[in-house]
Amino acid sequence: MTEAAVVLDDDPIFESDFIKEMVKQMRALDAYGVYEGWTQAKILDPFVLTKERKAAIPVIGDPDEETMARVKAFYNAISSMIESECGKMAIPMINLSHEGFGRAIITVGKLVVMDKTLRDVHRFGFPSLSKMKDEADKLLSVALELVGEHSTVAGL
Amino acid sequence: MTEAAVVLDDDPIFESDFIKEMVKQMRALDAYGVYEGWTQAKILDPFVLTKERKAAIPVIGDPDEETMARVKAFYNAISSMIESECGKMAIPMINLSHEGFGRAIITVGKLVVMDKTLRDVHRFGFPSLSKMKDEADKLLSVALELVGEHSTVAGL
Repeated sequence: MTEAAVVLDDDPIFESDFIKEMVKQMRALDAYGVYEGWTQAKILDPFVLTKERKAAIPVIGDPDEETMARVKAFYNAISSMIESECGKMAIPMINLSHEGFGRAIITVGKLVVMDKTLRDVHRFGFPSLSKMKDEADKLLSVALELVGEHSTVAGL
Repeated sequence: MTEAAVVLDDDPIFESDFIKEMVKQMRALDAYGVYEGWTQAKILDPFVLTKERKAAIPVIGDPDEETMARVKAFYNAISSMIESECGKMAIPMINLSHEGFGRAIITVGKLVVMDKTLRDVHRFGFPSLSKMKDEADKLLSVALELVGEHSTVAGL
């Protein structure tokens, strides 16, 4: 991406728990220390797909490693939020088959608290960090409701 | 494997539902028609790992495509058996990370009916087809018990 960054360092969204967790997860997946010295904004910038950025992504073949890492970081972060909210271990599992299709699930005990079919993973991203947080909040609240309703299975 | 086949065509185990399902699943994954004209015994033969066969498998790097296909066929077959026994859709999901580690789960509704950590996938196999069937029967009965106990979650 040759385009300028769209995420700014002084965005108040960096104060939210989910966005903090996203930065943590991205750093956790950064095995080679590429992000060392990077600001939070620079690390999360590729999650924001403007129209121009979207149009520039080729959708041929398998999604690249960086895109896959972003998908993992997103669901890992949600999983981690579920865990800290309900106090039970949450485990994410992501399966990307070829050509950008796959499935992401999060389990708590023997309960599936999130189950999402992934499509067009090449273009995984959000119009803004705020929209990304909205999506995560939605998934989180559904998951926590399920844990509350089926606590026996979630405790298995 | 240069060793002679250990599975024989007249083995009565080929009459069992699970072994029939295994053959079906292996044929389903055979996108290039390699197994055309093969007997059931020849198709399932690589699932049996004698001591000699085990010793001959290198455990360096990622497991090869054929091994992965066998792991998938095994859990697909169990999933299919669960589905026909309980009448609800069962979905297998297998995640193999690098070096032969991974996780295999089967979900029915929002219930995780099987959850297995995979280790040493390079050497995925059983001492005999009868032992393979025993293992599958065990996983199947645990799964069906779970569906019976938590039918609400399995029906979600």
